[in-house]
Amino acid sequence: MNLQAAMRLAVEQAESVKGSTYPNPPVGAVILDRDGAVVGVGATQPPGGPHAEVVALNAAGQRAVGGTAVVTLEPCNHHGRTPPCVDALVAAGVSAVAFAVTDPNPVAAGGAARLAQAGIQVTGGVAADEVARGALREWLHKQRTGKPHVTWKFATSVDGRSAAPDGSSQWITSEAARADVHRRRAVADAIVVGTGTVLVDDPLLTARRPDGSPAERQPLRVVVGKREIPHEARVLNDDAPTMLIRTHDPHEVLQTLADRTDILLEGGPTLAGAFLRAGVIDRILAYVAPILLGGPITAVDDVGVISIAHAQRWRYDEITPIGPDVLLSLVPA
Amino acid sequence: MNLQAAMRLAVEQAESVKGSTYPNPPVGAVILDRDGAVVGVGATQPPGGPHAEVVALNAAGQRAVGGTAVVTLEPCNHHGRTPPCVDALVAAGVSAVAFAVTDPNPVAAGGAARLAQAGIQVTGGVAADEVARGALREWLHKQRTGKPHVTWKFATSVDGRSAAPDGSSQWITSEAARADVHRRRAVADAIVVGTGTVLVDDPLLTARRPDGSPAERQPLRVVVGKREIPHEARVLNDDAPTMLIRTHDPHEVLQTLADRTDILLEGGPTLAGAFLRAGVIDRILAYVAPILLGGPITAVDDVGVISIAHAQRWRYDEITPIGPDVLLSLVPA
Ligand SMILES: NC(=O)c1ccc[n+]([C@@H]2O[C@H](COP(=O)([O-])OP(=O)(O)OC[C@H]3O[C@@H](n4cnc5c(N)ncnc54)[C@H](OP(=O)(O)O)[C@@H]3O)[C@@H](O)[C@H]2O)c1
Ligand SMILES: NC(=O)c1ccc[n+]([C@@H]2O[C@H](COP(=O)([O-])OP(=O)(O)OC[C@H]3O[C@@H](n4cnc5c(N)ncnc54)[C@H](OP(=O)(O)O)[C@@H]3O)[C@@H](O)[C@H]2O)c1
Repeated sequence: MNLQAAMRLAVEQAESVKGSTYPNPPVGAVILDRDGAVVGVGATQPPGGPHAEVVALNAAGQRAVGGTAVVTLEPCNHHGRTPPCVDALVAAGVSAVAFAVTDPNPVAAGGAARLAQAGIQVTGGVAADEVARGALREWLHKQRTGKPHVTWKFATSVDGRSAAPDGSSQWITSEAARADVHRRRAVADAIVVGTGTVLVDDPLLTARRPDGSPAERQPLRVVVGKREIPHEARVLNDDAPTMLIRTHDPHEVLQTLADRTDILLEGGPTLAGAFLRAGVIDRILAYVAPILLGGPITAVDDVGVISIAHAQRWRYDEITPIGPDVLLSLVPA
Repeated sequence: MNLQAAMRLAVEQAESVKGSTYPNPPVGAVILDRDGAVVGVGATQPPGGPHAEVVALNAAGQRAVGGTAVVTLEPCNHHGRTPPCVDALVAAGVSAVAFAVTDPNPVAAGGAARLAQAGIQVTGGVAADEVARGALREWLHKQRTGKPHVTWKFATSVDGRSAAPDGSSQWITSEAARADVHRRRAVADAIVVGTGTVLVDDPLLTARRPDGSPAERQPLRVVVGKREIPHEARVLNDDAPTMLIRTHDPHEVLQTLADRTDILLEGGPTLAGAFLRAGVIDRILAYVAPILLGGPITAVDDVGVISIAHAQRWRYDEITPIGPDVLLSLVPA
């Protein structure tokens, strides 16, 4: 297997543990033997458990000697709850290490240099862009900024409506798109909505499988606003923890959630507008259905723009068909 | 050159004459010699001039003998203003003909059968889908339905706005997207707007090159509505012909334009809504810019939908990044 294919396998490993590794990054690793055969794969285990490299090296055993380790993140060089991965790689006798993204964390960084000093051939930047925009996106953001990564997701018709004129909105997007949202919920640390959405829609806000059963991992449910939520609101049931944040200030919301990494803002229009105006959104996910609705109901009303010259400017970083819909991913321009 | 590559070349030829061949279809042809070398290319000439096959055969001369003709449309089998193309192909001595789309026109059809009878190896359906959705889309629609093909194009922010709250909309989309619109105008037969757009925006509605100079070919400009247009309105200048249609009935508009093939509806919201409610739009082109605007101005208001259950359902047939924007092409589901 060549390096690119091995990295793809490592990326799959990383994606499979996204959401379960906090505060560690979701990393994937593959060990190739001297002949390029896959002899071990691994992904970061929950906190306290081994890192991806160690899982993969354990699987490979002696076959790692003279082989290549392919990892989505620069192997760590520090003693945390587990010993440094660079030590494990050196001890295992690999002769080459390829990784995607350089570790921005000053405490853990320096792994590449240590490996090179130990005589191992080191290649960085393999599929770096894909990994940085994929499994590691939110973790890297947190490392770089110290703040949680906020994704605003909304569903819309191609003419920009989030509901029909009579208010009905189930469902704008396809089952495939909704399943994609539930997968994202399952890896997020918190799902955030305003009291308006709870009072009108009474949503569960849990991550569910296509058959309706709850996903293994549930994010924190967060409701923002000063009004009381009725005790029988579904968001207050036992399916997942729920936090009420009684403020209108997006910064205060993020302060309260400062120890999280991956926050999914699901609306409604008032709260989304407040977050957009505050400039605290790092990614927009627009699920655009190939339907027309017309009427007055849009996914966001006031984004703080008056004139086209001062439009909020973003940049598409991914355009992905999902079933009959299209998912537009945007990042700040 | 293999068949697929030759067909791509033929498609390019066809695209290059789109808009100039009315009432004939814009067709492209490539002649390969016995060894698969390109010895002739051609495209439909303006009415009265030769068809694509004949242009390409003339270029190839004797080198066509034993070769292959690759054409985007089944060669015609009828005496119009020019003799049948099948006769020219037989006379030229080609041993094989490959084409993309079968001719739906009962008068001209039967070309493939005639060629086969003459002992020529005939292959239909090569890249048929690409051709049917590309250069031949509007012509095929006209052949099949007897009606012009209507494309509604609009520019929008990712939150579904066609202008900022203060009404400013120059420019929502990029130069690249606007150049794409002007290319489409240059191959269309008519550009249609309502009086509202003329009275508010005073648009030229001509096809222009990126440097602002008028394109060689100009479509008819059509203004729909009962109000008077001021004499000094730019749409009434000498850059192109203009027709005023004093009705509110989209069917009457299309009746008046019944001899055209390719009609581009450019809005505004009132006229676009009327066309959508009347069910006379065959394609939607949404140029979606990666910006947020908010506010009350959307590209269409009432599409005749009250509840989500009765949404107008379309289907994406192309999703194309254009510069920083994305072009969503939709056809009826
Ligand atoms: N299509 C979609 O993707 C989508 C997603 C979610 C919801 N929705 C729709 O949105 C509708 C609800 O709209 P909504 O706007 O009322 O919902 P919302 O944004 O969820 O809630 C609005 C409430 O949030 C609180 N809030 C927090 N920060 C605020 C701020 N900076 N300024 C003002 N208020 C702030 C206020 O609550 P207090 O008054 O309690 O202080 C306000 O009333 C529902 O019909 C729902 O279906 C659509
Ligand atoms: N973003 C975009 O892609 C885009 C494109 C074009 C325009 N616009 C914007 O649209 C705004 C103009 O809006 P608009 O809606 O007034 O423009 P419009 O749709 O171009 O014109 C409306 C007029 O069309 C006539 N009309 C034709 N059929 C009709 C029907 N079935 N029902 C009612 N009226 C019918 C009426 O004229 P009479 O009253 O004369 O009978 C009506 O007043 C401008 O601000 C412009 O910038 C945006």
